Amino acid sequence: MKALETKILNEGVILPGNILKVGSFLNQQIDVDFLMEMGREICRLFSDEKINKVFTIETSGIPVAVACASAMHVPVVFAKKSKTGNMSGGVYSAEIHSYTHGNDYTACVSKDYLSKGDKVLIVDDFLANGAAVKGLIEILDQAGAETVGISCAIEKGFQGGGDALRAKGYNVKSLAVIENMDDDSITFRK
Amino acid sequence: MKALETKILNEGVILPGNILKVGSFLNQQIDVDFLMEMGREICRLFSDEKINKVFTIETSGIPVAVACASAMHVPVVFAKKSKTGNMSGGVYSAEIHSYTHGNDYTACVSKDYLSKGDKVLIVDDFLANGAAVKGLIEILDQAGAETVGISCAIEKGFQGGGDALRAKGYNVKSLAVIENMDDDSITFRK
Repeated sequence: MKALETKILNEGVILPGNILKVGSFLNQQIDVDFLMEMGREICRLFSDEKINKVFTIETSGIPVAVACASAMHVPVVFAKKSKTGNMSGGVYSAEIHSYTHGNDYTACVSKDYLSKGDKVLIVDDFLANGAAVKGLIEILDQAGAETVGISCAIEKGFQGGGDALRAKGYNVKSLAVIENMDDDSITFRK
Repeated sequence: MKALETKILNEGVILPGNILKVGSFLNQQIDVDFLMEMGREICRLFSDEKINKVFTIETSGIPVAVACASAMHVPVVFAKKSKTGNMSGGVYSAEIHSYTHGNDYTACVSKDYLSKGDKVLIVDDFLANGAAVKGLIEILDQAGAETVGISCAIEKGFQGGGDALRAKGYNVKSLAVIENMDDDSITFRK
């Protein structure tokens, strides 16, 4: 998605540790008109698939998931990063290591919201080493739901998570794939 | 908003401690078509105001804020519940007590995303004792931004937070106000 690449080049800030900060339009502050455009693009990329749910993980995956689900007219389900008092009954869960924050956490979803037969698109803001997506796939497997595809706004191609998932046969379509990122320079995959 | 009252009556579950669980359509699982309808209704309620930003706090305020901002065509800014490695530079912050989780946390926003002159609508999923909204107002005050109004999807009127804010002169318009909630019965404010 050319408009996203342009936005990353214009507004993205590279921080130490291969972190790309896009707080001005995708996290912290959200350019909602642009967000909805990204959602429509994800919908278009997966228009050949029958999808009945969009699945993501809190926090920053939620806006992208809402935009995509709004274009697809299906519900969003999001995994929480810890079991809260509000989540009664059984849960599906997976352990995930956070690259950004350098810690481990448990992603969990109430069993009420994912079922056998669900055809699910996993959506997130970033795809780097793929740890979060792998955790979400694990949860969908527990529920007997089908992972129809994976779409992230920004894939850090050089961290390999997206290609590893493709090699396993998953249908991964990111809106922008960064091939290289060092100091002040960003190169996108053709 | 009559459709929201109906949805609360049909799908809401009352848990001990005055907790209303609406995980089937507003948290955890989000009925996105209905969410966008709520966003359009908030936009309509504040159509006389000049608003250039929607402000909320992670996590469950984000979908409502995105829906509302999408109808208004303005950006969303959301406060985070702790300072993360991704949030470089100065921040505005406020201490907030969580009624649901029984703990205190710091809400913070990068100074890059709120400015003097901003005319801001605060949006959240729930308004109970008003602790979160008061924290968000404190952050807007720090930034010199104007709190033009406050809109929450579900206000627990019997907990008094919304009325206390109205008594202070804030323009609070919730989509559904619960006057009473005990065991299996929910009464809405006329």
